[in-house]
Amino acid sequence: MNGGVSLATRVLLFSDAKHFSLTKKSWESYNSTLAFGRPSSIIMPCSVLRMHLRTITITNVRVIDLRFPTSREHIGSDAVNKDPDYSAAYCILETDAGIEGHGLTFTLGRGTDLVVRALEYLSRVVHARTLKSITDDLNAFYLQLSGDTQFRWLGPEKGVIHLACAALLNAVWDLYAKAEGKPVWKLLAEMTPEQIVSAIDFRYISDAITRDEALDILRRNKQDQPERLAYLEAHGYPAYTTSSGWFGFSDDKIRRLCREALAEGWSSFKLKVGGDAEDDLRRGRIMREEIGWQAHMMVDANQKWGVDEAIERTRQLGELNPWWMEEPTSPDDILGHARIRREAAPTRIATGEHCHNSVMFKQLFQAGAIDVCQIDSCRVAGINENLAILLMAAKFGVPVCPHAGGVGLCEYVQHLSIFDFLSVSCSLENRVIEYVGHLHEHFYDPVTIRRGCYMVPSKPGYSGEILPASLQEFSFPDGAAWKEQPRELSALQA
Amino acid sequence: MNGGVSLATRVLLFSDAKHFSLTKKSWESYNSTLAFGRPSSIIMPCSVLRMHLRTITITNVRVIDLRFPTSREHIGSDAVNKDPDYSAAYCILETDAGIEGHGLTFTLGRGTDLVVRALEYLSRVVHARTLKSITDDLNAFYLQLSGDTQFRWLGPEKGVIHLACAALLNAVWDLYAKAEGKPVWKLLAEMTPEQIVSAIDFRYISDAITRDEALDILRRNKQDQPERLAYLEAHGYPAYTTSSGWFGFSDDKIRRLCREALAEGWSSFKLKVGGDAEDDLRRGRIMREEIGWQAHMMVDANQKWGVDEAIERTRQLGELNPWWMEEPTSPDDILGHARIRREAAPTRIATGEHCHNSVMFKQLFQAGAIDVCQIDSCRVAGINENLAILLMAAKFGVPVCPHAGGVGLCEYVQHLSIFDFLSVSCSLENRVIEYVGHLHEHFYDPVTIRRGCYMVPSKPGYSGEILPASLQEFSFPDGAAWKEQPRELSALQA
Repeated sequence: MNGGVSLATRVLLFSDAKHFSLTKKSWESYNSTLAFGRPSSIIMPCSVLRMHLRTITITNVRVIDLRFPTSREHIGSDAVNKDPDYSAAYCILETDAGIEGHGLTFTLGRGTDLVVRALEYLSRVVHARTLKSITDDLNAFYLQLSGDTQFRWLGPEKGVIHLACAALLNAVWDLYAKAEGKPVWKLLAEMTPEQIVSAIDFRYISDAITRDEALDILRRNKQDQPERLAYLEAHGYPAYTTSSGWFGFSDDKIRRLCREALAEGWSSFKLKVGGDAEDDLRRGRIMREEIGWQAHMMVDANQKWGVDEAIERTRQLGELNPWWMEEPTSPDDILGHARIRREAAPTRIATGEHCHNSVMFKQLFQAGAIDVCQIDSCRVAGINENLAILLMAAKFGVPVCPHAGGVGLCEYVQHLSIFDFLSVSCSLENRVIEYVGHLHEHFYDPVTIRRGCYMVPSKPGYSGEILPASLQEFSFPDGAAWKEQPRELSALQA
Repeated sequence: MNGGVSLATRVLLFSDAKHFSLTKKSWESYNSTLAFGRPSSIIMPCSVLRMHLRTITITNVRVIDLRFPTSREHIGSDAVNKDPDYSAAYCILETDAGIEGHGLTFTLGRGTDLVVRALEYLSRVVHARTLKSITDDLNAFYLQLSGDTQFRWLGPEKGVIHLACAALLNAVWDLYAKAEGKPVWKLLAEMTPEQIVSAIDFRYISDAITRDEALDILRRNKQDQPERLAYLEAHGYPAYTTSSGWFGFSDDKIRRLCREALAEGWSSFKLKVGGDAEDDLRRGRIMREEIGWQAHMMVDANQKWGVDEAIERTRQLGELNPWWMEEPTSPDDILGHARIRREAAPTRIATGEHCHNSVMFKQLFQAGAIDVCQIDSCRVAGINENLAILLMAAKFGVPVCPHAGGVGLCEYVQHLSIFDFLSVSCSLENRVIEYVGHLHEHFYDPVTIRRGCYMVPSKPGYSGEILPASLQEFSFPDGAAWKEQPRELSALQA
């Protein structure tokens, strides 16, 4: 505590000392840097901080199986996912510099242990590495994770091992952003176009977008960034709510929640469909009665139908004038989505939350299969792969409206959409971020919603860090939240 | 040992008593059935056997992590999979009737524990169930496995959880066939068309093939089955060898192995490519020098290239007049394969071993993306899903040439190809089964190859049962084969 700056200044420099979990040792180290190199560097503390933190080494990785018992209240229910326990395979990259990178991938409960185990395996790649050795070539790092010569057989680039890959990459970006003292959106927006494209694996997508085309988009959009950022900081990024129309909710509950959401300033509402056709329409009419016809209403079948049925049901639901029809069929069915889009026109078609990698998104664009690209921050390989998808979406002129909800997805995707507006699509037209109002209280830096918009986050990192008490309470199966439960809920543990 | 038939007769009835692992109790039970109901039923023992075994109940499931250290000899090396340890997540369905269903899914080593864990979870579905409760509605059983409301988030129907699903379904079919006293190909060929289609999930593929179209194919082909079977029993099912052209083999080794294979009667040879362009061509020319231009030669890039590079390289390799170009790019890239096929014509395009489900195969057919459909017995959900793929291939006129090798894949796919010839495509034109000459010694009922053809297997079951001594020796990490190894080979265990 005897360095070159006062305690008050230090707190200011770090935005929030608690967040950075600074140890006494790292404080001393930081202070000695200031004292040695730049006695008067207090006028530009951030860059000094960066210089210092770029030498940080990852000393340990903690992996946690985290599950919230949301199924007890039917939260998140839809036509396919009837009883989700919103969960995460969660990792913490501990460093010798007193900061931590936190990353998660979202799951629905049972099976989270598989992702945890895959994550434990993949995380060996970062042990004892400097952060710089990773961020200097982020695509090489991704290829190291995805290209393990034995492990990749289990995918490649899909399912359990890709979800695990996402958690680790999200943690790396969180650490990177904290080291730079910026929220992830700002880190991305301030990276050079060359740095952005160097994080992207173009191997299998260069027939749709080349490295040079991506560079062109990013370079062109450097101009007017300040104006767009000023707009976002004033108004926020538009959002829609999924909290009013879950599949398991009664008609009365839908009415009540729609009214409450309208009062809060929401203007776009999602309804879960995929049940009996008449039920879907009845629930849709109820929602329209409440929200009127000026508000946006989107319908989501969560993959329930085959292609022919999806066409028929999408046409029927046209009565509700949906803003889009989401996941009408199998997430793997690119040509099916293209046909549904053609034959159920003019209803716009959306998918993506289960689209497992950039090769699949590439084809959705190439086939003209979607009107709305619903990226997910955890299904694909974290920020790296989402950069590729954002750039392809911009080239093909498809608006990106991220999938969110679950646990941590809202916190994550706001960064991606803000970056999309600042540097890639540069448009808010037909663009909204999903919002679901659950579990945010567990985050250190939860999203801020005002009148149906995401406010721009300002804390360093990727906003996915969960509070220590929550990590403890909801760890599975030993956290307090699960200890009270009968054994049958503790799946995979018997 | 005091039942109504002599020991000699019993052995004859069961084909091989050891195989059925009959306990004293089950022998007594079987004999009492014979003695009670049909004292003279020795003239039709099989039906009695069926009646009896249909009441069998699955009492326990054993799951084994099985790994063969093949990477020590560079067996199975290609441009992407450089050091595979051929492995399997293996399960044994124990019953109260003294027979067991054995099933496996093929993996490459590290990560097998993930599939094992998923398999342990899925196998709960069969505990204490009668076999009949499963076989009466095989698709319902599949939907139960694939539709777990929390687990499916990890896919759906892809990656680790789908591989695990395959192992369990393969075990169920093995048990089913043993209970019926038939090899799987015969069980399938003798099932009614209605029984076959009732095992298929048409939800997401009925836009490509309807249940009625599938029934038509199967009904039409019931005729002339005996003639086709007689042909196969006389000549075998044509095969090709991959053992001569692994990526890691020296030029001299390729020459020697080609000569040896020619001498054994092989007439179709695969070469692994995807290295330096000149190296690929040199190795291809060497192979052509050895096998001549009458023999078939296929080239396999194991997903190494992007679409544009794949077109260029496939054109270059046209010099070798390959029978097909296999896995030129990402296995997820349906539209990419279609473009490669168009632009690198006339070279025929093959893929499938990494095609993760029937929805992806459906699109490969719909997009005209492939000339050769390479089903895998473990990548998709076992026999159930492969029935769908065989029927779609027949409808679209694409020959099926299964992926094999690894461990157990040859043993499995021979049944599928024989059924395809007897009941679905009814053609051998442009059809061959892959063959790799490793690890067969570990099987109770290994494939029999004569002059480059698979001989029709006759033992009851699916031929994937591994000998108890091998299960013990190669179980990971405690088997003798792994105990001797340095720790770094024991990945995922530290």
